[in-house]
Amino acid sequence: MQTDDRQLANAIRALAMDAVEAANSGHPGMPMGMADVATVLYRDFLKHNPADPTWIDRDRFVLSAGHGSMLIYALLHLSGYSNPTIEDIRNFRQLHSPCAGHPENFELPGVECTTGPLGQGLAMAVGMAMAERHLNAVHGDDLVDHRTWVIAGDGCLMEGINHEAIGLAGLHKLGRLTVLWDDNRITIDGDTDLSTSEDIKARYAATGWHVESCDGHDPADIRRAIHAALADSRPSLIACRTIIGFGAPNKQGGHNVHGAPLGAAEIEAARKELGWDAAPFVIPQDIAAAWREVGKARADEQAAWEARLDADTARKDSFLKQFAPVGPQAGPALEAHIAALVADPKAIATRKSSEMALGPLTEAIPQMIGGSADLTGSNNTKTKATTAFSPDDYAGRYVYYGIREFGMAAAMNGMALHGGVVPYGGTFLVFSDYCRNAIRMSALQRAQVIYVLTHDSIGLGEDGPTHQPIEHVMSLRMIPNLNVYRPADAVETAECWALALATPETPSVLALTRQNLPLLRTDASASDNRSAKGAYRLVAASAQRKVVLVATGSEVEIAAKTAAVLESRGIGADVVSMPCWELFDAQSEAYRSDLLPENALIVSIEAGTTLGWQKHIGRNGLAIGIDRFGASAPIAALYDYFGLTAEKIVPQIEAALA
Amino acid sequence: MQTDDRQLANAIRALAMDAVEAANSGHPGMPMGMADVATVLYRDFLKHNPADPTWIDRDRFVLSAGHGSMLIYALLHLSGYSNPTIEDIRNFRQLHSPCAGHPENFELPGVECTTGPLGQGLAMAVGMAMAERHLNAVHGDDLVDHRTWVIAGDGCLMEGINHEAIGLAGLHKLGRLTVLWDDNRITIDGDTDLSTSEDIKARYAATGWHVESCDGHDPADIRRAIHAALADSRPSLIACRTIIGFGAPNKQGGHNVHGAPLGAAEIEAARKELGWDAAPFVIPQDIAAAWREVGKARADEQAAWEARLDADTARKDSFLKQFAPVGPQAGPALEAHIAALVADPKAIATRKSSEMALGPLTEAIPQMIGGSADLTGSNNTKTKATTAFSPDDYAGRYVYYGIREFGMAAAMNGMALHGGVVPYGGTFLVFSDYCRNAIRMSALQRAQVIYVLTHDSIGLGEDGPTHQPIEHVMSLRMIPNLNVYRPADAVETAECWALALATPETPSVLALTRQNLPLLRTDASASDNRSAKGAYRLVAASAQRKVVLVATGSEVEIAAKTAAVLESRGIGADVVSMPCWELFDAQSEAYRSDLLPENALIVSIEAGTTLGWQKHIGRNGLAIGIDRFGASAPIAALYDYFGLTAEKIVPQIEAALA
Repeated sequence: MQTDDRQLANAIRALAMDAVEAANSGHPGMPMGMADVATVLYRDFLKHNPADPTWIDRDRFVLSAGHGSMLIYALLHLSGYSNPTIEDIRNFRQLHSPCAGHPENFELPGVECTTGPLGQGLAMAVGMAMAERHLNAVHGDDLVDHRTWVIAGDGCLMEGINHEAIGLAGLHKLGRLTVLWDDNRITIDGDTDLSTSEDIKARYAATGWHVESCDGHDPADIRRAIHAALADSRPSLIACRTIIGFGAPNKQGGHNVHGAPLGAAEIEAARKELGWDAAPFVIPQDIAAAWREVGKARADEQAAWEARLDADTARKDSFLKQFAPVGPQAGPALEAHIAALVADPKAIATRKSSEMALGPLTEAIPQMIGGSADLTGSNNTKTKATTAFSPDDYAGRYVYYGIREFGMAAAMNGMALHGGVVPYGGTFLVFSDYCRNAIRMSALQRAQVIYVLTHDSIGLGEDGPTHQPIEHVMSLRMIPNLNVYRPADAVETAECWALALATPETPSVLALTRQNLPLLRTDASASDNRSAKGAYRLVAASAQRKVVLVATGSEVEIAAKTAAVLESRGIGADVVSMPCWELFDAQSEAYRSDLLPENALIVSIEAGTTLGWQKHIGRNGLAIGIDRFGASAPIAALYDYFGLTAEKIVPQIEAALA
Repeated sequence: MQTDDRQLANAIRALAMDAVEAANSGHPGMPMGMADVATVLYRDFLKHNPADPTWIDRDRFVLSAGHGSMLIYALLHLSGYSNPTIEDIRNFRQLHSPCAGHPENFELPGVECTTGPLGQGLAMAVGMAMAERHLNAVHGDDLVDHRTWVIAGDGCLMEGINHEAIGLAGLHKLGRLTVLWDDNRITIDGDTDLSTSEDIKARYAATGWHVESCDGHDPADIRRAIHAALADSRPSLIACRTIIGFGAPNKQGGHNVHGAPLGAAEIEAARKELGWDAAPFVIPQDIAAAWREVGKARADEQAAWEARLDADTARKDSFLKQFAPVGPQAGPALEAHIAALVADPKAIATRKSSEMALGPLTEAIPQMIGGSADLTGSNNTKTKATTAFSPDDYAGRYVYYGIREFGMAAAMNGMALHGGVVPYGGTFLVFSDYCRNAIRMSALQRAQVIYVLTHDSIGLGEDGPTHQPIEHVMSLRMIPNLNVYRPADAVETAECWALALATPETPSVLALTRQNLPLLRTDASASDNRSAKGAYRLVAASAQRKVVLVATGSEVEIAAKTAAVLESRGIGADVVSMPCWELFDAQSEAYRSDLLPENALIVSIEAGTTLGWQKHIGRNGLAIGIDRFGASAPIAALYDYFGLTAEKIVPQIEAALA
């Protein structure tokens, strides 16, 4: 006899309330409310194999409402993943438990992405569904044929990023994406009426989605709705009407069940209500067995898939290469480009240098999928090899993301975590603010996403302070596990691209200029990536060294000019270019102190906040930068006005030396 | 004979194309496309008085598509504002011209807010419309009765923040808000079809908006649509079907006219097409006169309004007090609170201390309007005096913003810039990322907005790395004109609130703990706001001073414990609390070097990134902090794991001294 869906769902409810109680912290309301929906999804629809969470053609399941983490921990445990163990679940939210407060992809196989920051899970799922369609177009139905499922709450739908994400999904007709909305009409502050009067289903319909509704506690109705979603070619939203904290008789349906333990008395009452007699963390054998069957039901599909993969060696090689690290291809792809730069030195904006590097890179590396948030011609992100991704051609490798910075960044995270693609995307550096948490999430999730952030200083000129980054480069440097590159010329730009492509677990930012910059590395060769150490001596002092000028990006040229003036006055000055702080930090103390010695005046020059440069210049060094907002004017006027010229810097250095 | 609407509009077109051409930079497409709509708006609907741009009861006009800045410069100039002059317009986008690349409220009266970052203008307009309804409810129809008008482009509507902003407007039935959408079907990358398939009108309707359409080049149809909007009690979207760059015969309707000068030949062709014979920057006298009439048409309404205001002295005083700086009231309001804290010292989380300070503050200062992005109980932002703002009670002073951080922050900017209210709003500190550009825009626009950002470190515990700020406090410190406060106990929290309320042109961030902190300032009194200097010596060394421990917020307690251990080993150690870097920077060199002397080992302790602390500790100092992502665990385990305990810090100090 088949075990009743409700009994399976109650196993989730029991684990959720017990784990939250044991931790004295967490969110029981959502797992208890959505247990029935999740059970049906896992039982009848999700294609996966708990024995191999890395199977490429598995369905992706994203718990966008990440605070309900016990839902996915229970699902993984019950359906037979080797982790989390019941011990892990007992240690929910304790140090080193893989059952962290919110689901973390780097802690637990089966967790496709890290969620908690609301709205981003769904937006990452859009990226996963885009990656699936792309790889399907390239490798065929028999190798790539999976779906993306999302459980999302009201918070995920109310966040602005939801508008951006569903707009992309609607435009690209991502029919294999299904969102199960936990329509419980409760937010932390109370009833949803307090904060919204929107007709969510009508909004999704207006955005090109198929919309269904169901009773989220009626397995038959849930099945009907999901089947209807599968039958429609559009992405689907299923409004699952649920009661938050379902099963807790005195607390369900209210906002107090959202984010706090139920307490011993209510848990006892819930056990009675649910007919659940087992002790905490104990799953009755029949229910455990039924859940194992759920987990095994589609495992044989992986074997069949592998047989298809093995049938053609050349095709298999090509397929597996799609998922291999791309770093090794980058250097060789850039050899001719760097040689050409050196052979015919020209002044080029680094955004343009980036485009020139991207040409051979996107040619050589089919995994690269580019795009821009409606600034293609300004970010210089499109190449010949990257034609438009669209429902008419999912094989295309260039995404017109529209004016959706946050949606773009989260979609790129989803693509990267899906695997098989290395996404890069552009906007203006100042608008990294619009997607900053997604950049952070790239770093936290160890997703190889490359952000092409152009117009990186007052050097953009007339657009003025709303568009001129001041604090952005430095504040991005503060995000852990993010490499921030600010190249000084066309050669460094190519080098930084090669480095960004070589870190499969670290995302990168390339901060690039609008304005032209001269070629400084006139002796460059592709075999000698000097940016790899993060900083290097570009010019050594002629006279006795008293000063070291350290600069990044467009200000390296100014540092070189400043050094020339100093040398003409008998003051020896090194010029150090520092395209990447994070890589410089990783060098030996000897290397670092050779570049930035204690016995010289260290002067930093960067067209942004000086706060942070004290790390390199010391307390007695001189930090030349901009600690106020920019202004609207032509570039030459601005560099003069903000004191970023050799003429204005030299006297300050002379004063400091005096 | 009345001058034809089209002739008036062509004056805008001519100024736009001439100014962009002279600057060789800018965006002619939008001003030329929307000139007819803007002319009708100014001619028939906008209540304003060019002779007094500060008139409180004027309509607010927001150019959300700020790149089309020449539209508003032309409108202000033509309708008779004393600035910009025609010389200012000739100097469009030049250093020190008030006609900056994007409209800047701090440069030009008549510009209600600074726009350019897409989507935010419309969202600020929502805040302005909320402030209007609130002040209307408090002061009556005869003193507060104005509308808010927005011109927005496709970019403003595609950004995620649009979803948040229109959700707030729909919920709160802001019927005096009208958005004129420049429906030109072009974005920078090309046709809107490239990046969106959304039915925008249906989406707005789903969100509680009234929707109209019109031919944006047919004045009669524009008038009809606006009249329909005025007749509807909901906020209105009017889709104005326009041709971008209207009048430039060879370039109009395409994306190349969006953001580049037309060029001399096309300008000549456009003059012919438009029948515009005047030389560049010259407005024919009849048209200039007709525009002046437009500007004067409703000036007499200000006189009538002033007569109503003057009719009742007590009422007038009360009304004008609403618009006065609130700083002076803050200190006195907190006296009893601080005395009570000292009389009965308790361990209190600073988020709770903040609530305790807010009690008397919101009681004493009716201008304060609070709120939270669905974290009311966590941010502790609601007080007895602040009842819910809603269509049923616009006099309410607490906004349930919903899960809309960016929308909340932008709405608060709009409220503050509207005047008469001082908004504060809460979310978790980590989600400052979601509204970071709006925080920046508070600072750039000199808007007094107070951000209550709680759960300010790993100290929040089990929610883990997605919720634990690491880089956030430091990276907020880098935003110019933003005061970042991180108070160490209940007294400092009250002091920081008083300081935040006293800077009408500077926004503030309060970074507050989830966890309890002991009272450190046991000798406090309201007359001695020690946080006002940004940093102060909390504990002076007993033994000979070798160490200065400088800390903020929750780590000041740890610094005090560390100092006690050091003193017990004969190592003298000061403890400096530094709740606000920006205020400390403003102190004299003597004050700063007395606190942080060169002859001591300076040790910073802060549960966040160490990058930046080198500014205060020097190259040989010791920075104790966290330069990686957090983890999910109970707070005590985390502080131990990340080395933020006296036991783990003391040996590092001893080693550094050795």
